[in-house]
Order: sequence, then structure tokens, then C-alpha cells
Amino acid sequence: MGLHRVVEPAGVLPQAAWRLDASPEIAPNEVRIRVERLNLDAASFRQLWEKHGGDGDAVRAEVLEIVSARGKMQNPVTGSGGMLIGTVEEAGRRSPLGLRAGQRVATLVSLTLTPLTILDGLARWDGRSEQVPCDGYAILFARSIAAVLPADLDPQLSLAVLDVCGAPALTARVVSRYVAERERERADDPTPVRVAVIGGAGKSGSLSLAAARRAGAARTVGVVPVVAERDALTAVGLADAVALADARDPVALSTAVTTALGAPADVTVVCVDVPGCEHGAVLATADGGTVVFFSMATSFAAAALGAEGLAADVTMLVGNGYVPGHAEFALGLLRSESGVRALFEARLAAD
Amino acid sequence: MGLHRVVEPAGVLPQAAWRLDASPEIAPNEVRIRVERLNLDAASFRQLWEKHGGDGDAVRAEVLEIVSARGKMQNPVTGSGGMLIGTVEEAGRRSPLGLRAGQRVATLVSLTLTPLTILDGLARWDGRSEQVPCDGYAILFARSIAAVLPADLDPQLSLAVLDVCGAPALTARVVSRYVAERERERADDPTPVRVAVIGGAGKSGSLSLAAARRAGAARTVGVVPVVAERDALTAVGLADAVALADARDPVALSTAVTTALGAPADVTVVCVDVPGCEHGAVLATADGGTVVFFSMATSFAAAALGAEGLAADVTMLVGNGYVPGHAEFALGLLRSESGVRALFEARLAAD
Repeated sequence: MGLHRVVEPAGVLPQAAWRLDASPEIAPNEVRIRVERLNLDAASFRQLWEKHGGDGDAVRAEVLEIVSARGKMQNPVTGSGGMLIGTVEEAGRRSPLGLRAGQRVATLVSLTLTPLTILDGLARWDGRSEQVPCDGYAILFARSIAAVLPADLDPQLSLAVLDVCGAPALTARVVSRYVAERERERADDPTPVRVAVIGGAGKSGSLSLAAARRAGAARTVGVVPVVAERDALTAVGLADAVALADARDPVALSTAVTTALGAPADVTVVCVDVPGCEHGAVLATADGGTVVFFSMATSFAAAALGAEGLAADVTMLVGNGYVPGHAEFALGLLRSESGVRALFEARLAAD
Repeated sequence: MGLHRVVEPAGVLPQAAWRLDASPEIAPNEVRIRVERLNLDAASFRQLWEKHGGDGDAVRAEVLEIVSARGKMQNPVTGSGGMLIGTVEEAGRRSPLGLRAGQRVATLVSLTLTPLTILDGLARWDGRSEQVPCDGYAILFARSIAAVLPADLDPQLSLAVLDVCGAPALTARVVSRYVAERERERADDPTPVRVAVIGGAGKSGSLSLAAARRAGAARTVGVVPVVAERDALTAVGLADAVALADARDPVALSTAVTTALGAPADVTVVCVDVPGCEHGAVLATADGGTVVFFSMATSFAAAALGAEGLAADVTMLVGNGYVPGHAEFALGLLRSESGVRALFEARLAAD
């Protein structure tokens, strides 16, 4: 778990620590990665970008300052990090991760708990994109997770998918459970399972739409905030319906979902990284339904008190970024769903 | 939903609003309550108490200021509120709540979304307890929930139970699901379901322990931070084991739970209102298990990233304060479980 890397405060896990020891010497159960690229969490990058009014140099300076002060890239405001790709430089003899020197990998644990040292001052980054070219070192613990990058895919494409691979895996698990329950209840004519993905044109959103359909959702809707995303998501055919709504407006969101699905959603997946979407998601969900929050902008109190205040009998899940097999599942969706791939490639091209 | 009571910002639900219109004239689907007592949320009261260094007059002044500025009692720092008791003064002809003038009720929706006007300057409150004697008005919406106070119980006792009645109901639901699954897997000799309640001697904690046992948990542990609570919880026999640990220390907490249960918990219920318990709860929970967070001090990001960072395949639930039938279930536990009643009465006597 990397407890020996925690400098302060003592006794917490690395993710909760203010500062980690990022020295390059590894313990027998650790792995050292030579970093080539960081992928900042969307909420983190957006906060930095807005704070500095789009001044890339200032964004870069703050990222350098954070990593230097904390020994990891964890945005102190959003609490979030991101992930990285690089090459295995040295694997300790007792590391259980099965990695070998020379393998190109992506870390599937957050940068918020990954000891990191930057060596090049991020000289090749203009501070204007979440994708950060970087030379440096990172340390993986025994309980970390890393995926060897597949040879058949562009590494940046793989990284973008792996960054959000927990979302489609958990969406598939939740939707499958509803499908199985409905079939147990009425095997000959099960009630259809309806799924809404808020932020359906984004990375985690498009993968979640594909995952929901594969898990047996009878009808899906992707909700997006702007016309360009509506057109893009409609063109790739990943959802049965695409609706335009501001997710921060509870009445507008729930009306859009209910209209598109013909009823409130059984499963609502929140993939938009803006605060204030909790109430709309609850209101868009049927009694007995489930809301899965993947956005790091989610407020625990707003979700808990919002559902209570609406007397809404909905199950609300904190989107856990780890589900066994999540990396393979997400990469499989990218390979088999041309719509997912088209959205990811367009996004990378625009970056 | 009370949208017409939202003053600013426009378009949000009452819980998310900065300010509500708390005027006493009711719409046809509303109910006006004459308030007699507020019960502040524990996290909110603790924040105010610590901010003002235990100066009751300053705590009272700030509560008055919040209610006057916001038209509701929502602590701007914790985001939480509490609940109230009072008497129905007027029920609109289209209110679906089934209340009549003269009934003594407790609101089961949070104060964070309840329009409130204080008339007596809280003159009878010394600012030193969560229980606030208060004369004033409050408004219930069509989708609010209120429970008529039972005649056989002290109203303060009922209020204390109703304040946390979502916790035992959701705990029972989650534990029941594990018990049913285990029985489906192996009907003759199902694997026992183990439950840990962090903060087991508190209000929501003791009710959750009783609920877990009733739902079929084979072994339960209540974790408490101090010797006095350990002795109190041990004396009433609500848990199979009682363990002493600081919930903010992940290794200490998980060791305490695993030792007491003989294995990690299948269901871990977090009922302690202090920040920083997310990692310990995840670490104390078995793969495939569930953590239910009832504490308003829970950090969404710490939970999500903590589980990911530990590669922990656990389901994490945002504790929804509303489950159908929750009030009756919790009051039933109080009536039938002498241990629950003893802890509640001791707590009220100490206030």
C-alpha cells in the first residue's frame, strides 16, 4: 500500500497524504517507471485552467510546484490527479505486478497516490491540454495496478481509454444486475431496463453507453450540454436517443431523460465533471433505480441530502475506479465499437 | 419539490439553493408547521462548536444569522442541516402528506431544504447542544416527508431516532441482499455475512447494528474511538464484538475489524462524523463487499480514489436518508431492542 512512502501526515494512506517520498530507489515490492506522459484528470485540469484564465505557462508552473511540494500530482482544490504512461525501468524482486523492465505501461491507479519526480521542468508542455509530455520517475506499490499498453493501439488512445476504464465496467455490472433481476421476475417478457448517461459524448460517457447496451439495456439515452456534442453522439449511433440538457438544471435534466426513455431511468450514470448534477440525476431516476456517480465534482452531501429531500428511493454509488478486468473490458469496447473509437479519435485530434 | 420557494440561484432545487423564501403563507400543496425544536446535524453542530471554541452565545448567534440569511438552517461549511419537531398549523388542501392541523410531527427531510423562520431569537437555547428549543415556522412541500410522533414515546427520543432512521433501513436492505445471495449460492450451509459498524455506539451506529443482526448478519462488530463508548456498547450487547480503534487510521481500523470478525467485513457501515474514514472503511471490507457511508463528513473523492488506489473491488454507497418505511422500522427497533433504547436514553440524559 506504500505506507513507507508517506511523509506527512503519518499513518494515512498515500492518497490521503499531503506529501510522499518520491525518491527513485525502490523497495523489493515496488516498481520504478520512467515517465513519458501524464494525463491530468479533467476536473483538475479545468480548475487549473480556469484559475489561471487560460495562461498555459501559469498552469505549467503550478503543476510543477504541486509535484515538487507534494511528491505526487494531486490538485489540492479538486483532490484529483490523473494517470501516466511510461516504461518499466526496474521491478523489485517481490513486486506482485508481473512487470518486466522495458515494458510500456499505463498506471491504472490515480496520480494522487503515485510518487512522482519530474526531471525536465515539463519543457515540452504548453500547459494547454490535459496530456502532458514529461520526463521523470514514478513508483508503483505492490497493490497498484498497471496495464501493459496493447501493441495494436496508439498509446495515446489506450491511455485515454484506460484513464476512465472503471466507468464502463461498473456500468455493465450495475445494468447486468437489473437485467438479471427483471428476467427472474418475468422470464417470458421482462420489463425493459432503461439507462441514461449524463455526459454521454465524453470519454467515460461514450464507453458507458456502449457498456450499458452490451449489458442488455433495452433503451439508452446520452445527455449532452451542447449541439456539437449532440450531433457527434447522434452520428456514431452509440445511444438510442440523444438529448440536449444542462445537467445542473434538475427539472430540465429529468424531463429530457424521461422524454427520451419514455420513463425515468433505471440506471443513471453521471459522467460530467461539473458540480451540481446530483439533484437532476436523482430526479431522472426511477424509484428502485441506481445512480452511479463517476464525476469527481460530485458532492457527497448534495447527493445524500438531495435524494432524502426528494424522498427518492434510489441507490447511489460512488464510482469506484477499480473493477476486476476493467482495462481489458474497456479496450475491448474500443476495438469492437466503431462509434466509441470515432469519438475518442476525434477528441485526441482536437487536443 | 418546492421550486417556487427558491430565491437564489434560480432553477436549483431547495437543498442546493443559497436562499429560500420562508414566508408563512402556504401554497395549496404545502403544510405549515409551528416549530418547537430543531435538532442540528451532528457534523454541523460540531463545526460551529469548534469554530467558536465552545462559546454557546456565538454558536447561537451564527445559527440565527444563517437562518435569517438563507431562509433555512444549512451550515455553509458542512452543507448539512438537521430536522425539527412541531405541530401542524395548516395543511394545504392539495397536500399529499395526509397531515391535519394539531398533529405533532417530526420532519424526515433535511433542514437544508426546509423553509424556516425563527421568531424567538432562540432565547431558550444556550448554544451548547444539538437540541435547539425554538419557536418559529417551517414549510413542508408536497414531496417532503413527516412522521406523526408516536404517543408511546418521549418526543425527544422519537426525534433522535427519526433523525437517523435512514441508516438502519438501508443497512438492513444491504445486509439482507448479501444473506439472500449466500443462501442462493449454498442453501444448506451459507457463508456467514459479517458486518462492521464504524461508530457503533452512536445513534445511527447502534440502530445499524441492531438492523444488521435482524437482517441476518452472522457476526457483527461495533468499532468505537474511546473506552467509555466501548464499555457502553459492550454492556448493551448489540454487537457480537466491540473494538477500539481510530477510524481515521486505515491500518488500525482494518486490523480491528478483521480481528473481531475473523475476516474482513462483507458490509461496512460508516457512522462517524469525522473526516478521513474512507480509506480505513475500504481496507476493512472484503472484495465483493459493500461500504455504506452515512457520515456527512465523507469525501466523495477520497472514497472513489481510495478504493481505486487500493485496487479494492468494493461497492460504495452514498447513504440515502430515505428508504420507504424507514421511520416505522427505526421506531420498531427502539421499541424492541432494549440495548438501542438504553444507548439513546443515556445520550439524551447526557445532553
